Amino acid sequence: MTARWWCELAWLGGEDAEAGVLLEAGDDGVLTAVTSGVRRADAPDAEALGGLTLPGLVNAHSHAFHRALRGWTQAAGSGSFWTWRERMYALAARLDPDRYRTLAAAVFAEMALSGITTVGEFHYLHHGPGGRAYRHDAMGEAVLAAAADAGVRLTLLDACYLTGGIGTPLNDVQRRFADAGADGWASRLEGLISTVPAAARTVRVGAAIHSVRAVPPGSIATVVGWARHHRAPLHAHVSEQPAENDACLAAYGRTPTGLLGALEALGERFTAVHATHLTGDDVALLGASRSSVCMCPTTERDLADGIGPAAALWNAGSALCLGTDSHAVIDVWEEARAVELDQRLATGERGLHAPGRLLEAATAAGAAALGWPGVGRLAAGYAADMVTVRTDGVGLAGTFSGSGAGAAAAAVFAARGSDVTNVVVDGRTVVAGGSHALLGEVGPRLRYAIDSLWDTGP
Amino acid sequence: MTARWWCELAWLGGEDAEAGVLLEAGDDGVLTAVTSGVRRADAPDAEALGGLTLPGLVNAHSHAFHRALRGWTQAAGSGSFWTWRERMYALAARLDPDRYRTLAAAVFAEMALSGITTVGEFHYLHHGPGGRAYRHDAMGEAVLAAAADAGVRLTLLDACYLTGGIGTPLNDVQRRFADAGADGWASRLEGLISTVPAAARTVRVGAAIHSVRAVPPGSIATVVGWARHHRAPLHAHVSEQPAENDACLAAYGRTPTGLLGALEALGERFTAVHATHLTGDDVALLGASRSSVCMCPTTERDLADGIGPAAALWNAGSALCLGTDSHAVIDVWEEARAVELDQRLATGERGLHAPGRLLEAATAAGAAALGWPGVGRLAAGYAADMVTVRTDGVGLAGTFSGSGAGAAAAAVFAARGSDVTNVVVDGRTVVAGGSHALLGEVGPRLRYAIDSLWDTGP
Repeated sequence: MTARWWCELAWLGGEDAEAGVLLEAGDDGVLTAVTSGVRRADAPDAEALGGLTLPGLVNAHSHAFHRALRGWTQAAGSGSFWTWRERMYALAARLDPDRYRTLAAAVFAEMALSGITTVGEFHYLHHGPGGRAYRHDAMGEAVLAAAADAGVRLTLLDACYLTGGIGTPLNDVQRRFADAGADGWASRLEGLISTVPAAARTVRVGAAIHSVRAVPPGSIATVVGWARHHRAPLHAHVSEQPAENDACLAAYGRTPTGLLGALEALGERFTAVHATHLTGDDVALLGASRSSVCMCPTTERDLADGIGPAAALWNAGSALCLGTDSHAVIDVWEEARAVELDQRLATGERGLHAPGRLLEAATAAGAAALGWPGVGRLAAGYAADMVTVRTDGVGLAGTFSGSGAGAAAAAVFAARGSDVTNVVVDGRTVVAGGSHALLGEVGPRLRYAIDSLWDTGP
Repeated sequence: MTARWWCELAWLGGEDAEAGVLLEAGDDGVLTAVTSGVRRADAPDAEALGGLTLPGLVNAHSHAFHRALRGWTQAAGSGSFWTWRERMYALAARLDPDRYRTLAAAVFAEMALSGITTVGEFHYLHHGPGGRAYRHDAMGEAVLAAAADAGVRLTLLDACYLTGGIGTPLNDVQRRFADAGADGWASRLEGLISTVPAAARTVRVGAAIHSVRAVPPGSIATVVGWARHHRAPLHAHVSEQPAENDACLAAYGRTPTGLLGALEALGERFTAVHATHLTGDDVALLGASRSSVCMCPTTERDLADGIGPAAALWNAGSALCLGTDSHAVIDVWEEARAVELDQRLATGERGLHAPGRLLEAATAAGAAALGWPGVGRLAAGYAADMVTVRTDGVGLAGTFSGSGAGAAAAAVFAARGSDVTNVVVDGRTVVAGGSHALLGEVGPRLRYAIDSLWDTGP
């Protein structure tokens, strides 16, 4: 059986969209043909997608449970990343597997409504209070189940987290993040992987080094070796804050990027998350090794992190991808434009990143960074993951030519999650008419999941 | 007759919302009573507003016709404010009174849908091609009619524009902006004012100095005198770009703020728009004179203007208000958080502006800057202008306590125009259930108005 969609307009790459695009997919959720210039009358049996259709958005860096902080951490007087982190730890201490699954499913569903079809969940909340292990790695299984509940494609990036800082012991909350060394981490991860059916088409497991603060060099080497052996994606938080750089230089005489380079972590399967405070040498190392960089600009605004060198990294050879990270905002359209807009604030120049390139960051580059080379384009052989935005709403009306010319700029600079009408993941409709086709009303689910954590219901 | 609304939650100032707030207004569109702690059962006849109700948002700086640039100016390679201006001029050259009214009405309706109840339209497109005067100031009348069409409260800030730059003649497009000197500007404006009925409750006319680039000192003094005589609000673009500062210093030996101060423009009725590149003396002058400052952060991002000294201005004594300016985005919620978020990027510190203060900027402070001291608060004696946002959608779900505690932070950091369900202006419902009650579907109106300008319809 073949699924067919007829798109009024579809973005197939570059700066413009094509009109009348027929997408066909097989039972395996893979596109078999993408044909432009097809009149609706010539494909009457295909499902019609009015508006503009693009490859589904890829959220390459998520901590699902941080969604429960939205609104709660911004009010409290002055502060910094580090005071924000205290509140996040208070939240982490309240989660158990059931609450984690309920919350994460609602958050992944919120993502789907905004056009996200693939999520990279950077998962570090592994154990129960005091670090006591759950049976069956219940927290990791909760993440896998939540993605299935919400119908999104998932790369679970399981993070190794061993120390509270360089040479600093774990505190009570951090004990929930830690394993018995990097070998303990690897062994738990093998257990989790064994629960994923071999035939699963929308789940992958990858590795993460939480940061050079949380993983000593010898253990970093172990994680790097594990990822190489499994040919798995490897992510790490890198230089989000100057204090991390200072501590790393003091302890190891290298920047975080320099240390990761020396431990052979960098390369095409590696993604540096944030990469905000880099030296010129760091930029050159990341670019020359073809490492990806995941920028999370709305989080970096919220946490007062600063503006990373996006244009320099691109010019050096790094692919850029995007993440909503702390979920102060869940809107990859906003992340895409924020990369460019924040560069404008930093440099006084416009147009450092072409819109088509920003859409690549939001789609294929993110998928590649999460270990899905066959995801993120509307082309034969790629997964049938797509998002459709209305072009007759107030956001996009009049923002590009009816022929499709200039559609990339319009999508990047004017689209919002609330413009999304339809989402397909692996050939299956997950959002239709702006509503979640699997879970129904998502707002009340979020509210229930969050109120039960904070005990703040009405 | 009395109109009554019962609000599930309403923000009356500060950081929290009150539960069960009954609003009552007379036929004159003025609130007569605001009562907290009222159960729904005790006000069964009142119109129920579920979610969170706030005073209507005030957009203190708009150029309505710039909406037609959204999506069209961001793609073209590298560039700056100045290349953007060329495209804007090409658009201005295509407008006539009918097209201007059609476009502006759709744009004001888009504003209403996002919760904006009062607009300050900084209006400088006064004349026909080559500077030929229309009969009856047809362009100004088009703006007045458009606001009435869309049901929003309007301050038309009529801008004096006389030179193409300091000592530079007008170019062809700029001739449409200019009058025969400041006296010609004043005389045209008196004509426009005479068309506004004395009983009009939702229209006011104020003055604007386009910039120190476009108005020589002697003419600035004339505009200042006119505004003082009429006790009218007076706005000016100030120091949006370093080049303006350089030219002003070279010609007059003063910064733009210094020049405006020497010409007695500053004071409680004055609003400096942008105020991005200020000296310490500029900040002190604006603050000591109690001048307002209108920040337009999404435009300042888009045009690579830079980040203005919002916290320093506030500390010096200036009230801050907000504008969507070029309408790359029409969302005052986004402007409010962007003031704080961009300060975080510039300083590395969070929480420089309390959320309640940012909501004041988005409401009462903006109204005051537009000459509406009785607008912008939910309190007896203030106009019945309000906006309601849903709290059960994915944006706001779980972002504050069911009791209303922390509602200001949630509204500032999580609300979006697409969360708006209901808008009331001067006691009249303008948006209901997320749809424009007067104009119906707004997207197609925008598309029609813009496609006809660019000749880009399908």
